[in-house]
Formats: sequence, C-alpha cells, structure tokens
Amino acid sequence: MNAEIIAVGTELLLGQIANTNGQHISSRLANHGVNVYKHTVVGDNKKRIQQAIIEARKHHDLIIFTGGLGPTEDDLTREALSELIQVPLIYDEAALEHVEQFFTSRGRTVSEANKKQALTFEGAHVFHNHAGLACGSALEHEGVLYCLLPGPPREMRTMVERELEPYLATMNTSGNFFESRVLRFYGIGESSLEAKLQDLISAQTNPTIAPLAGEDEVTLRLTVTETNTARAKALLDATEQEIYARVGKYLYGFDNDSLYSKALEELACTKSTIATAESITGGGLASSLTSIKGASQVVVGGFVTYSNDAKVSQLGVRQATIDTYGAVSEQCAKEMAEGVRDRCGSTMGIALTGVAGPDELEGLPVGTLFIGVADGNETAVFKRVLSGTRETIRRRAAKEACHVLLLQKKKGD
Amino acid sequence: MNAEIIAVGTELLLGQIANTNGQHISSRLANHGVNVYKHTVVGDNKKRIQQAIIEARKHHDLIIFTGGLGPTEDDLTREALSELIQVPLIYDEAALEHVEQFFTSRGRTVSEANKKQALTFEGAHVFHNHAGLACGSALEHEGVLYCLLPGPPREMRTMVERELEPYLATMNTSGNFFESRVLRFYGIGESSLEAKLQDLISAQTNPTIAPLAGEDEVTLRLTVTETNTARAKALLDATEQEIYARVGKYLYGFDNDSLYSKALEELACTKSTIATAESITGGGLASSLTSIKGASQVVVGGFVTYSNDAKVSQLGVRQATIDTYGAVSEQCAKEMAEGVRDRCGSTMGIALTGVAGPDELEGLPVGTLFIGVADGNETAVFKRVLSGTRETIRRRAAKEACHVLLLQKKKGD
Repeated sequence: MNAEIIAVGTELLLGQIANTNGQHISSRLANHGVNVYKHTVVGDNKKRIQQAIIEARKHHDLIIFTGGLGPTEDDLTREALSELIQVPLIYDEAALEHVEQFFTSRGRTVSEANKKQALTFEGAHVFHNHAGLACGSALEHEGVLYCLLPGPPREMRTMVERELEPYLATMNTSGNFFESRVLRFYGIGESSLEAKLQDLISAQTNPTIAPLAGEDEVTLRLTVTETNTARAKALLDATEQEIYARVGKYLYGFDNDSLYSKALEELACTKSTIATAESITGGGLASSLTSIKGASQVVVGGFVTYSNDAKVSQLGVRQATIDTYGAVSEQCAKEMAEGVRDRCGSTMGIALTGVAGPDELEGLPVGTLFIGVADGNETAVFKRVLSGTRETIRRRAAKEACHVLLLQKKKGD
Repeated sequence: MNAEIIAVGTELLLGQIANTNGQHISSRLANHGVNVYKHTVVGDNKKRIQQAIIEARKHHDLIIFTGGLGPTEDDLTREALSELIQVPLIYDEAALEHVEQFFTSRGRTVSEANKKQALTFEGAHVFHNHAGLACGSALEHEGVLYCLLPGPPREMRTMVERELEPYLATMNTSGNFFESRVLRFYGIGESSLEAKLQDLISAQTNPTIAPLAGEDEVTLRLTVTETNTARAKALLDATEQEIYARVGKYLYGFDNDSLYSKALEELACTKSTIATAESITGGGLASSLTSIKGASQVVVGGFVTYSNDAKVSQLGVRQATIDTYGAVSEQCAKEMAEGVRDRCGSTMGIALTGVAGPDELEGLPVGTLFIGVADGNETAVFKRVLSGTRETIRRRAAKEACHVLLLQKKKGD
C-alpha cells in the first residue's frame, strides 16, 4: 500500500507544535509493508481538509488522518470526509457507551458535543480509544482505505499500537509479515556506530538494519520479512550476533528497555536495594527509577539535597569537605553516596553532584558531574563532563548514573 | 500572502525525524502577515516534488521549500523546480566563492557535487548560508514566490532569521504584523472552556481566539493583526479581560509559564522556601521544580520516601499512623508534610502520597492522591482522584501539588 498521512490542526500551521504524529505513524507503518509517500498538514477547515483528500486519493490507496476527532466545533475531519465521499456518520454504540461512562462516572451529563466523539462512518471498522474518548475509524471506499486517528499524541500512539497495527496486519494477505528487533546503544554516537557497521547496513536486505539517533542513545532497528516465525528469529539472531561482535560493548538493551529499567533489573537480580542522593538532578534519578513498575522492591528512598546545608544535615556530608573541596567534587559525591546508603539502610547508595548551568559553579564548567557509588565495601566516584542545555545535562546525568550502575555490575560479573 | 511549506526528505517519511522545520518556519511567518495553510512532506524524488509544486501553486502564492539543496544525488529540490517552471539554474558567484573558500581553506579541492550547492535560478534573489554551504533562493514566477531553504535545522533557522525574514519584511507593504498571547488554564477541560467562551470564539476575528489542549492543561492563543504596537496590546488586553471575567479562576499563567514556574515564583515573592516529601511521585515534583533556573533559592531539599520504613525513619511519620490509617491517607500526608518541613527547616513542607498503579494499594483505587501542605501554623491536606496511566498519574500528581500551592497562595492574598 502507498500511503499519505494527513494531520489536521491549525496549531500545527501556526507553528505551536511539530507534526510528531506524522513521524510516529510513518515509523510504525514500515512494519506493515506500507510505503509512506507524503505527509500533509492542513488546518481545522472543512474545505481545506477536503481539498487535501481529493489530492491524496489521486496518488495513494491508504490515507491516514490524525486530529480533528475531538468534541469542539473546529474538529472537522469526520465531517469533511463524510460529506466528500457521501458516506453518512453514525454513532458507534460501544464508543458512545465509552463516552457516556466517562462522564456519568464523574457525576456529569454528556453534552451533544462530547457525543460527537463516538461518531463513525456507516460500514466502518471502529478503533477503540484506550487513552481518551474519540473513537477512530477505518473505512474502505472506492479503492482507498481511510483511517482516522485522534490528534493528542498519547491517544494516537495507543490507538496505532493496539488498534491500527493489528488491523493492518489482517490486511496483509501475502502471508509475509514484518518482525522487528530494536538494539539499544549508549555511549556511542550515530555516525560512529554507522561507520563501524556501514558494510553490513549497505549489504543487508533481510533483515534490514536502520540506525536512528534517539534521546541520548542510538538504536538499530532490525526488520525481517518472513512467512515463518522460527526463520524470522534465526535471521534476527544471526544479524544481532554480527553486530554484537563489532559494537557489543555499547549495547545495553533491547526493544522497550531503558537504562532505568536495565539498572533496576540488574539490582533486582542480586536482590540489591538502592537509595539516591541527588543534587544536580534534583530528584530526576529517583523519579525515573520509580516510574518503572516494581521499583518499590529496589528503590528504598532518596534525598534531594540541593543546598549545601541539606547535604550536611540530611546526608552527613562534612562541612569541612564542602569548604575544602566544594559541593561539586569527588569527595562530596563519595560522602553523599555513603551517607544516603547509611541513612536508608540500602545495599547501594548512589549520589550525583554537578553543574547543570546555565552558570558555572565553584569555578567548574557547566556539565561537570561526579557520580558516587557506595556498596559498603568501597565507594567509587566517576567524573563526567556532559554537554547540552540545563535540561539535557540534568537528564543525561541521571542516565549516566544508571550506566555507571550497569558497568559496575558487568565488572562484578 | 497565503503560504505552503514543502519539506523535502525521505528521512521524514520514514519517521526518522519530525518536521520541526515546518513548525519553525510557520512560527516565524506569522510575524510577516503570512498565513500558512498547508505543510507538505515529500521524499527525495523529482517527480513527487514536482507533483507537490503543481498542487501547491494552485492554492498558494508563497511556497517555501526546506531540504534537498545539498551536494548529494538525492538533493533534488532546485532541479525539480527548475525543470517544472522552465527557469534555468545558474551559479551564483558569491555562493560559489563561499563553497570554494570552505574547501580550499581546508586544503581540499571542490568537487562538482559540492559546487551544486551554489546553484540558483536565473533572476532569483540569493539567500546567503551563514551556517553551511548551500545557498537559498527566492524567485517570483507567474504570481508565485518560491523560496528555497536548506534542510539542516541550524542552517535553515539561521537563513530564516538573517535572510528570509528581512526579505519578507520588504514584501510586506501593508505594515500589518501579528502578535500573539497565550493564556494557560488548569483544572478545566478543552470542551468546557470552549463552551464557556463559544460566542467570543465564534464572533471575534481580531484578536482570534484559538483553544488548544496541552499536556494536562488547556491554552488559548489570542492573535491580533495590527499596524500599531500599542493598539495591538490594547486589543489583546481587552479580550483577555473578557475571558478572565468568565473563566479567570482557571487561568494560571501566560506564554511560557508552567505550573512549576508559577509555584516557584509565588513562593519567591513571599521569600518562602519549600521542601518536598514524595512517595507516589518518587522525586518527580522536586525534579520538575529544580529544572527551573533559580530554584535553588526556593527549594531547600526533598525526600523520596517510597517505602513505609523511609517515611518513618526519614520523615518521622509515626508507625502507628501507617498501621492505623495506611501510608496513603490524609494522616500520613499531614505527618510527611510536617516532617519534611521540620527536617529541612523550610517555610513550607509539601508531601504527596497516593496510588500510581497499575495495582490498587491498601484497598484504595489507582489515582488516589493526598497532598499535605504544612506552613508551621496549620497543615492542610487535599484529596484528589486522578485518572490515567501510571505515568500520567505521577505527572499529574506533581502538577496538582503545584496547583494546590498556587490556590493556597491566592487564598492568602
């Protein structure tokens, strides 16, 4: 199938947000044998939506819409398509119940505007909205498959994963299926990784190897086309091994892994617990670790010691250490890690102190970071110099801490 | 002028990157009296670029391209347009010198491929590339103004600022400009807000009022078209007042404000300091507050007391309180808030305990939240029931805490 993705929303044309929905849908469609040839963004205007559809259906047999399914008057995607192709809109019973249940459970009555979100096309397949109210639809009409998805990114993503992708899989009658495996790398840039694998990437077609720079990491997506599950797995395994032989030391996980989930996993494996002492990250490490289900078995507690006083009074860092070496120092990181481990009674203590910026601190440049890791026997301190804005430095600092935990664990193996 | 922005690049259609260039150009064009009606993304394919141009010039008199001006074989934007409108490409002397200078200063010779980056159209105005090699062009042809910009974001942004915007300013003979103001609301849904303002939104054209659902909040963008700065401000003020009269109690800020920045601002105003005690959010509140520059003046420190033991040993919550009422209870939130205020010596203590899910806890449903706020005189506890996934509940809990701080402040005024 040849596809166009039409995002509907005046906020996109005003430049308030980027069309990340188009990107996400594109990246998912590749797994279903769909070629995306065009992205279009139009405003909340019925005539312009219809113009876009008229042009799109000349060239493509799959048109995916995102946005314009909400309750307000300027949500017009359904209406524009219905009027253009002359297929009437009807309420989907299950979707209507979903909307009604939402409001009645909150002691409110459903407005007509909100009921609109349960409208679909006569004869359409309905996509349930697992993360919101507006249902999606898939309608075949005169050789074109129209799929309508909501605009809020979380609703759209959930619907793509749980509704659109399974639906498209049933349309793929060749028996061929796509299977992907994502390899996650930390500590190596996209171009370096690509340079080390260039011959493989160029030569290989099944699986294909697609590098992509992610947030603070690089991923490789291996995608195999097969009719047989066991063969698909064998092909993926063989390619993974070739890649591992060259850049294995940067590989930290697969698919939905994150540095946080891997760090927790490693700690749980050895029945270790951990406590955090954070200055530069201000609670970001604890927050990211505890965002993972089951974290309560591993993360005992944490301290956010943003001020020097708090480092002394809460963690027992010696005032003399701060006076002599500064709060951003190897010595302070060491005492923070030992202090938090001691106070929380955990197996491990981890501490972060550094300079997030925008201004330098204690004569140290923005990006300076010390990570202390105490395990009761010894306390190791790692120095890093990170680049980026205040926001990226804080985020990367928390990830560096996880990476240090993973490296410590590897060393111990 | 009515504009379409065409981004050229197969990587966009594969979903490797989002079309942030379209967003940026859109946001800049508003200042020059340009209405952007469409964004289009096409791949590095001459025929498809030409198809996009044919469609675009039917409806728009300004077409801005980004991407496809580089040295490689799949950089085809210039060639596609030149062939379609039959205007030949010629080397721009200054641009060619710029390219040659780059290579010769590095002791290298210029390849023919790299010279391509100095090509422009016969009769075009040339945009200098201050951040790279490929020159841009502006060409008027049969009533359409074609502007070509490079694809790498930094090159594109620099060229927009230093070349395109000054060029468009000379075209904007009306003297009209756009000015926007964003109003931020919390605690009211998009459809409710819109219902309360429906007549204003429908009737008003200058400024226009555009609602947008954001993450956990709703914004209204007021956009005025004027030739005079003082009149623009007066029109925005008048509309803001009308809106305030109806839904002012949900308005928490403007433009780049966030609940976090507003909460910090309010605390700083009264020279108050705060310490955080977090269970459900696991450090998310402290992390979000300290992400804002200057937070160190206000946020003294914080505790992540995920386990009951930590609540008792670190914050001084009584074991009897947890045994009798549970860790997710009004009583526990109260003692956490008082405990953290006491231990950190801050003006205020704020505590969060609740059920993030996915499983219920202590017989309480997912989403249950207690927020304790201690100020030394009294301790108030607020109960909330949030909906969403584990991730959204945690995020919203931290925002609710900020909102409670803002409401407390308002009450005190």
